Amino acid sequence: MSDTIKILGISGSLRKGSYNTALLHAAQELAPPDLQIEIGDISQIPLYNADVQAVGFPQAVEQLAGQIRAADGLLLVTPEYNYSVSGVLKNTIDWISRIKNQPFAGKPTAICGASMGPLGTARAQYHLRQIGIYLDIRFLNKPEVMVGTAHERFDAAGKLTHEPTRKFVGDLMVALRDAAQSAKG
Amino acid sequence: MSDTIKILGISGSLRKGSYNTALLHAAQELAPPDLQIEIGDISQIPLYNADVQAVGFPQAVEQLAGQIRAADGLLLVTPEYNYSVSGVLKNTIDWISRIKNQPFAGKPTAICGASMGPLGTARAQYHLRQIGIYLDIRFLNKPEVMVGTAHERFDAAGKLTHEPTRKFVGDLMVALRDAAQSAKG
Amino acid sequence: MSDTIKILGISGSLRKGSYNTALLHAAQELAPPDLQIEIGDISQIPLYNADVQAVGFPQAVEQLAGQIRAADGLLLVTPEYNYSVSGVLKNTIDWISRIKNQPFAGKPTAICGASMGPLGTARAQYHLRQIGIYLDIRFLNKPEVMVGTAHERFDAAGKLTHEPTRKFVGDLMVALRDAAQSAKG
Amino acid sequence: MSDTIKILGISGSLRKGSYNTALLHAAQELAPPDLQIEIGDISQIPLYNADVQAVGFPQAVEQLAGQIRAADGLLLVTPEYNYSVSGVLKNTIDWISRIKNQPFAGKPTAICGASMGPLGTARAQYHLRQIGIYLDIRFLNKPEVMVGTAHERFDAAGKLTHEPTRKFVGDLMVALRDAAQSAKG
Repeated sequence: MSDTIKILGISGSLRKGSYNTALLHAAQELAPPDLQIEIGDISQIPLYNADVQAVGFPQAVEQLAGQIRAADGLLLVTPEYNYSVSGVLKNTIDWISRIKNQPFAGKPTAICGASMGPLGTARAQYHLRQIGIYLDIRFLNKPEVMVGTAHERFDAAGKLTHEPTRKFVGDLMVALRDAAQSAKG
Repeated sequence: MSDTIKILGISGSLRKGSYNTALLHAAQELAPPDLQIEIGDISQIPLYNADVQAVGFPQAVEQLAGQIRAADGLLLVTPEYNYSVSGVLKNTIDWISRIKNQPFAGKPTAICGASMGPLGTARAQYHLRQIGIYLDIRFLNKPEVMVGTAHERFDAAGKLTHEPTRKFVGDLMVALRDAAQSAKG
Repeated sequence: MSDTIKILGISGSLRKGSYNTALLHAAQELAPPDLQIEIGDISQIPLYNADVQAVGFPQAVEQLAGQIRAADGLLLVTPEYNYSVSGVLKNTIDWISRIKNQPFAGKPTAICGASMGPLGTARAQYHLRQIGIYLDIRFLNKPEVMVGTAHERFDAAGKLTHEPTRKFVGDLMVALRDAAQSAKG
Repeated sequence: MSDTIKILGISGSLRKGSYNTALLHAAQELAPPDLQIEIGDISQIPLYNADVQAVGFPQAVEQLAGQIRAADGLLLVTPEYNYSVSGVLKNTIDWISRIKNQPFAGKPTAICGASMGPLGTARAQYHLRQIGIYLDIRFLNKPEVMVGTAHERFDAAGKLTHEPTRKFVGDLMVALRDAAQSAKG
């Protein structure tokens, strides 16, 4: 019997009705049975300031770092603001990267994102991939899930209703499970 | 007689002893007499959240937006964290970009940055350039000022002491003045 | 009476039936009356080799460089191959950049591109923008013209038939004319 | 007993005295005993043209594709021209990517590069990483080998003499061997 693979999912948007958070929930729904996605909370992480760090890491950072460390893999769901990842997500990464033995290293990681425009966060995703190099994040190359015209693909309750997109998200979760399983050895 | 050109400078680091903030001060010191650099404060800008925005823009965002609007040009000083701009700076840009008639549009803007590594924030600067496209920021192409091995170029009091770097920063300020003057017409 | 603005257009695809070359022809058709677009030929430019350069620049490079120098602005039409500009276009730029007083410097330049996928060469265009920084190309920030699903927007004869795209291309040509006129002083 | 790992190395510069080709030779010299680096020849690959492809792939492309397919991993050595990979290297990739069941897919791949400037091809390397995503190239995240001020690190005969750089190159080859071995299973 194969063990359950544990994934930590993070949405880079703090808006309650965020399409990206909705996409994260869709991933939970569409994941294969042996993939379990927990959601990390980044809303309490303050602006990064090395002077604050010198006094001690904020509780919310320590907690998220622990969750990342405990996970077999990550799912980073990024909105695209101004042709890049949200400052909120980047700020979270900046904090976590300062933790001793930073927990991103070697972690199999899938990316996806949703936007109302046609490009579906493509620009943000490629920036995110560069951000992960030094951190040694192991991003899946494929599939790339870029959900454009999000307002037509989610219903008013935030449910992903667009069938081809549901298929892509499910495929991404299978690929993430396989990568995490393989890394686990 | 030529009017004074007013520049708003923003440092993407909140650390008190930041090399990037020190670089911003160096730019103030090395600017030509007809270029005046005011420093914008981003330390009070909260994490971007569209739900918060719906209630009203934070005071710190409104104030910075007003300062940007009033300026003839901008100087963005970015640290490089994890191969991109700091989340703190990106978060600031994300807020300002949501202001009605966002004030970055058409603004002549210089970039510089300092890091302890050899690349001097190169990776962050190219990300910043992409971030500015939709916002219609008018970045100077040259000179590119990337201050590597910063700990050897500033003294303990945060003064930029490395002569070639002082020359580059001065040249950048002259180029920014010329671009801002030309945009002013 | 205003003078005619002369633009040199370059397509980064050598295929006869190329959508990108077709897009360049559409730009010629849709340009305002005072904007004239000549097309540069890159098909005879060999692979860049500094040993060849040491003997002398190839005739095709010299000729294109002369056309760039004589133009008031440029229109670079780039296909997207493997998430970046075509090697063929990049190779052309590599040669031209070695010419003494390289002619790209300060040149107002518009970008567009066509692809069969949904992103319309977005990834290639952002790479091209970075390629142009050191060369001091003055890219327009807007409008960004990314023609996705090209096979549905051009007819069998290579005519751009999709009205909204025709409008975008026309707008880009107006913006290019204005930038070139302004640079001409 | 472990089998020898076979790597195909490609230099993106055609110049005989190229620092990048010299770096590739250094990698051959500094590789661990069970890593063997063959060098691929890209000098005979013509400019990419889909009309030519329709008639048949050039011999030089077929040959290189076969060498890539036969290798356990790749070493891509890229010069930086105009803040990106050389057009010559990109053109090679464009051709190979069109081969049926393109051979880059899943291939463990190391990147390095040399330049006379201080950044050591950093900008080119990040572009190359984006170029490889769709091709499903499996780039090592670390170590990143960026050889700046190359003219001070190689001697007149093209031998890499700078000890710290020799160490980095050796480390990269060990990491590549490990990744290729692990992928081989």
